[in-house]
Amino acid sequence: MADLKRLLNPKSVALIGASQNRAKLGSQILSNLKKGGFTGKICPVNPKYKKIQGLKSYPSVLKIDSHIDLAVIVIPAGFVNQILEECGEKGIKNVIIISADFSEAGEEGKKREKRLEKIASEYKLNILGPNCLGLVNSSRNLNATFADFSFTKTREPGIAFISQSGAMGSAVFDWSTGQALNLKYFLSLGNKAVLGENNFLDYFKDDPQVSVVAAYLEEIEDGQGFMETVSRLTPYKPVIVFKSGQSRAGKSAALSHTGSMAGSSQAVEAGLARSGAITADNLENFFSLLKFFQVAGSRETNRFSSGGVQVVSNAGGPLVATADSLDSQGVNLPKLSDQAVKKLKKEIPELTDYKNPLDILGDADEQRYKKALETVSREKNISSVLTLLTPQSGTRVKKTSQVLNKVARKNSKKLFLSCFLGGEAVQEAKDYLNKQPEIVNFDYPGQVSFCLAKWREYREKSKALKPFQALNKEKEGIKPKNKSWDYLDSFKLLQKYKIPVLKTEKVTGKKDLEKLRYPLVVKRVGPEIIHKTDKKGIILGIQNKAEALKALKTLEKRFKSGYSVAQSQESGQEILLGFKRDPSFGPLIMVGLGGIYTEIFKDIRIEVGDLSLERARKMIKNLRVYPLLKGARGEKGYDLKALEKALLSLATLARENPEISELDINPFFLQEKGGLAGDVRVIE
Amino acid sequence: MADLKRLLNPKSVALIGASQNRAKLGSQILSNLKKGGFTGKICPVNPKYKKIQGLKSYPSVLKIDSHIDLAVIVIPAGFVNQILEECGEKGIKNVIIISADFSEAGEEGKKREKRLEKIASEYKLNILGPNCLGLVNSSRNLNATFADFSFTKTREPGIAFISQSGAMGSAVFDWSTGQALNLKYFLSLGNKAVLGENNFLDYFKDDPQVSVVAAYLEEIEDGQGFMETVSRLTPYKPVIVFKSGQSRAGKSAALSHTGSMAGSSQAVEAGLARSGAITADNLENFFSLLKFFQVAGSRETNRFSSGGVQVVSNAGGPLVATADSLDSQGVNLPKLSDQAVKKLKKEIPELTDYKNPLDILGDADEQRYKKALETVSREKNISSVLTLLTPQSGTRVKKTSQVLNKVARKNSKKLFLSCFLGGEAVQEAKDYLNKQPEIVNFDYPGQVSFCLAKWREYREKSKALKPFQALNKEKEGIKPKNKSWDYLDSFKLLQKYKIPVLKTEKVTGKKDLEKLRYPLVVKRVGPEIIHKTDKKGIILGIQNKAEALKALKTLEKRFKSGYSVAQSQESGQEILLGFKRDPSFGPLIMVGLGGIYTEIFKDIRIEVGDLSLERARKMIKNLRVYPLLKGARGEKGYDLKALEKALLSLATLARENPEISELDINPFFLQEKGGLAGDVRVIE
Repeated sequence: MADLKRLLNPKSVALIGASQNRAKLGSQILSNLKKGGFTGKICPVNPKYKKIQGLKSYPSVLKIDSHIDLAVIVIPAGFVNQILEECGEKGIKNVIIISADFSEAGEEGKKREKRLEKIASEYKLNILGPNCLGLVNSSRNLNATFADFSFTKTREPGIAFISQSGAMGSAVFDWSTGQALNLKYFLSLGNKAVLGENNFLDYFKDDPQVSVVAAYLEEIEDGQGFMETVSRLTPYKPVIVFKSGQSRAGKSAALSHTGSMAGSSQAVEAGLARSGAITADNLENFFSLLKFFQVAGSRETNRFSSGGVQVVSNAGGPLVATADSLDSQGVNLPKLSDQAVKKLKKEIPELTDYKNPLDILGDADEQRYKKALETVSREKNISSVLTLLTPQSGTRVKKTSQVLNKVARKNSKKLFLSCFLGGEAVQEAKDYLNKQPEIVNFDYPGQVSFCLAKWREYREKSKALKPFQALNKEKEGIKPKNKSWDYLDSFKLLQKYKIPVLKTEKVTGKKDLEKLRYPLVVKRVGPEIIHKTDKKGIILGIQNKAEALKALKTLEKRFKSGYSVAQSQESGQEILLGFKRDPSFGPLIMVGLGGIYTEIFKDIRIEVGDLSLERARKMIKNLRVYPLLKGARGEKGYDLKALEKALLSLATLARENPEISELDINPFFLQEKGGLAGDVRVIE
Repeated sequence: MADLKRLLNPKSVALIGASQNRAKLGSQILSNLKKGGFTGKICPVNPKYKKIQGLKSYPSVLKIDSHIDLAVIVIPAGFVNQILEECGEKGIKNVIIISADFSEAGEEGKKREKRLEKIASEYKLNILGPNCLGLVNSSRNLNATFADFSFTKTREPGIAFISQSGAMGSAVFDWSTGQALNLKYFLSLGNKAVLGENNFLDYFKDDPQVSVVAAYLEEIEDGQGFMETVSRLTPYKPVIVFKSGQSRAGKSAALSHTGSMAGSSQAVEAGLARSGAITADNLENFFSLLKFFQVAGSRETNRFSSGGVQVVSNAGGPLVATADSLDSQGVNLPKLSDQAVKKLKKEIPELTDYKNPLDILGDADEQRYKKALETVSREKNISSVLTLLTPQSGTRVKKTSQVLNKVARKNSKKLFLSCFLGGEAVQEAKDYLNKQPEIVNFDYPGQVSFCLAKWREYREKSKALKPFQALNKEKEGIKPKNKSWDYLDSFKLLQKYKIPVLKTEKVTGKKDLEKLRYPLVVKRVGPEIIHKTDKKGIILGIQNKAEALKALKTLEKRFKSGYSVAQSQESGQEILLGFKRDPSFGPLIMVGLGGIYTEIFKDIRIEVGDLSLERARKMIKNLRVYPLLKGARGEKGYDLKALEKALLSLATLARENPEISELDINPFFLQEKGGLAGDVRVIE
């Protein structure tokens, strides 16, 4: 693994393409480097000038007489590779390439990027970009981007933000100033020619400056590496991921066969879930989570496992709406203790009701807020306090925000959240609250519920999370041949992995029918006969030899290709089992409701390939059909152990046979005792 | 129906409880009345003073020598009823009661409110409140509340806002100032002792000042009246409803039997859907919709039915994220026309791609935005244009917002939306955009998608909407007796309404078994035997008389009560049909997947009682199981006409039998030809 320390924490920077011309990026980056107060050495490189912005300019990196930790390149794409070689010659190990016109811009650009990769591997260069905004490191006062950025003063650990979009960085930089967002690092990944998110995620694990990691990603190329890295990181530092480019149009489309269910967006979903990342699905949620986890991470609240929230409000309507919203996200509002009720009754006798959520009425001034907040902050079974306010006739908005801040500072074991609803009358207080490191302030209660739900999920999940380990990674990446296996061979494969199968015999004529037990099912199988029930390739309920012979003839007439097989007719709950190999995340194991309702209800759970018994059980338990499998209303249930075993065997099969790109068992007849694969399809 | 014109548009107001003491609501309301510039007469009433705030004060309403349109009462609750009678005596027809401590405050208060209702009916008083914030009417410059409100200057029609929470009003008043929200009316309903939302909704239908109606409601007491009123109003004026207090905890709870599925939150959902209201499910969505529909309503966009949106952005990441968000809400991004592509290529040659969404790149200045916006605004198959911006090195934020506004003013046939992402660098432009009546500006793209989806839904729905008419309203409201009907009588009821039933015979011994056709099902029925499959009250697959006799004996042993019936064993797709009578919304008709999966997948559609064939079809089509009913993959389907017919008959049955509180048919065996009710439960 590349050592990224000097890329991210350089002591000396050469800016190749530095410029005097204010309209050029090379000028903006130089002035950002200077303006930020970077304490290391800055060496502008541009043969056209002797001096740029008061600094000595070098005609070439080769002419710089001292060691350079990091080169930032911002020259037209056509010249980049040549300069990169010069960097290599000079012994510079770390390079940021701002310049665009690489793989994102046609064939010419793609070639250019290939060449770049070759140079990088030749000289062992760490490269960020190309086509990126650059790098910010707050603790070094380093702004090596062409966007404005205000450094925060705090020494507290903060957020490392990795972004596949430069514009997202510009937006966050700008947004962060009013939000006291403690951004320690910002990295614009650009085209990820050499270094990708996984390299940096791994680095941040041991960086004491970093308490929260955030990533905006449009593509996760090495999903297995991502799961490995993030599953190791997330128990220590929350990792917030906004994966865009994941349009849901595909999901709503009809499901043509089980294979398509594990398509790429399901892979990303399953992979993110396995990694332990906290996921946002839109910008608003993403920004909310950044601030929330920054503050939550700095409080001593983790010991409170209930995750309950106490709401205090001067407004009845918003209180009801907020309770709805919290409830819909599964956030718990614990009952007030008798002690607290007693204290509140004494201190605020004018209330009509003493409960959670607590309505302190429209005429509440800051003193009433203070009494309420101080009392509820002592409650043991809550981990956070949400203060709601709307400006009413007796409300003292600014004063209330100050009181809230004081209470928050005093009670470091609770997380304080606020939401002041309104416009001009609350703006000053909101600006004030946004800047407090002890409070997470929100524009609307919906975001509060969202963040609290994610917080609870994170706390529950990170405890139990085991590091992901990509198995035969070297063997993966085999291109699918789209070739179906022979039907009977497929059954043999299952048997090899101890997945019980229905006894299945090839039948061609009378002779083969002697040894069979009736009633029978006769099927026509072969590579061109996939959806058997559709194409009338299956005949059920055969009671005797004569019927069987007739069926064989019918199938022979219907299909030119393939051969016929016979199985005894079975019953049981029909289950779907299978896997599909994703090029990025590896095998995705599936279990779901089989039979005629498979495509109707899509009651399917998907997990990545390193399945454990615990997670296999969870998959089954999370199925909607689970109550039925378990046995509802006193009915006998089905053999869940057999299903778990089959799932685990399937995962082993997937890992040990990287040449198989897809496998479906549908139906798997789950019975009171045991279970049997009734049909299987294997594709290489 | 009460004439509310003078309540809402008074020419003279008496303020009973007017005060000189600034801490009192009576002082704040008086100063709000004066400050707003109300042009009518204001008569403060308070025996303690001769003059209040420069106005002559009257010792009693009875002493006022001129006619009074509206009395506003703000005195302690204990005195309200006496004063109310004085108002009646004086001939005042319209009263707002601000005072609290009525039905919301214990037994004493409830009695007080009962008395108030009696006085109101005696004197035929229109009463708003009690326990409310009051009334605002912008066109009269009337602020009869104790909250600050800034009147908008525009004469354009605008929003009438009805709120069951006063605090919600305070929040919206404050928020509206920075948003150019054109609030024509605000009404705080309070306890709705006399007048409720339906009265006002009805009034706004013909008020030319009102183009959009918004309501925040915590309870809809007369759901049938609500559906009647709103379904008549909404084709002309969009009605935006935020119904809170609808906690989803109930929905996630296990479904004990079908009855609970039509519980109150389902009733509200079905009722709102039937009314044609546009629904918000949180505060942020609600506020977004207010501004969106105010602006959308004032544009000439309705003729464009596609609802497509064109996105223009200087930021790649936010563009991808926004496309995801639009897609997930089903909002269409039509292709750019060849003409537009050609024009863009000529005018902005530096772009790498010319499509929708349109990335005009990070260095876009306001001129590039202008060119792009002007070109896409000419596109015929879009109804709206969304401008995204993040502040980057070349971005001229304020100038871009001005350019956008100019383009929006010129193109009145499109709706212009914007979203400027960031913080301080975009704040001024956002403030500017928020104040433009031609633009809807959003903080985040997620809200844009939400509003666009609601807009499309509204346009589609309002076209087809038929007014709801409560049928036997006078007969409704019968209290459920929780009494089960006799099993065979229940079947007879279905037959009376031409719902086909399985032939069902009471069997007590040998004799009854002669005339039956095997295979048989024997069931034990009776009021105490509800879930037959659980309690082993059903024996299937009886092949002959001997088995039948044995089954009869078994059932007799198992159950002390009830009697046994026999049915021939049937097959078909198992469907659930039923209705439940809601005290507010009337009968709710249900259709869904029956059998063992009923409770697992809850694949059920619910409609209110005035079912039409069209809507019955839609219910069936919206079932997830519909593809199976229709016949998937070349399989034969089921008799949908028979199902439609049964649904409609059920609706008639529900309307004509108001004493029945619940009826379930489960299963209804839907077959290739026809269908049969296999089991039915009727509860009064």
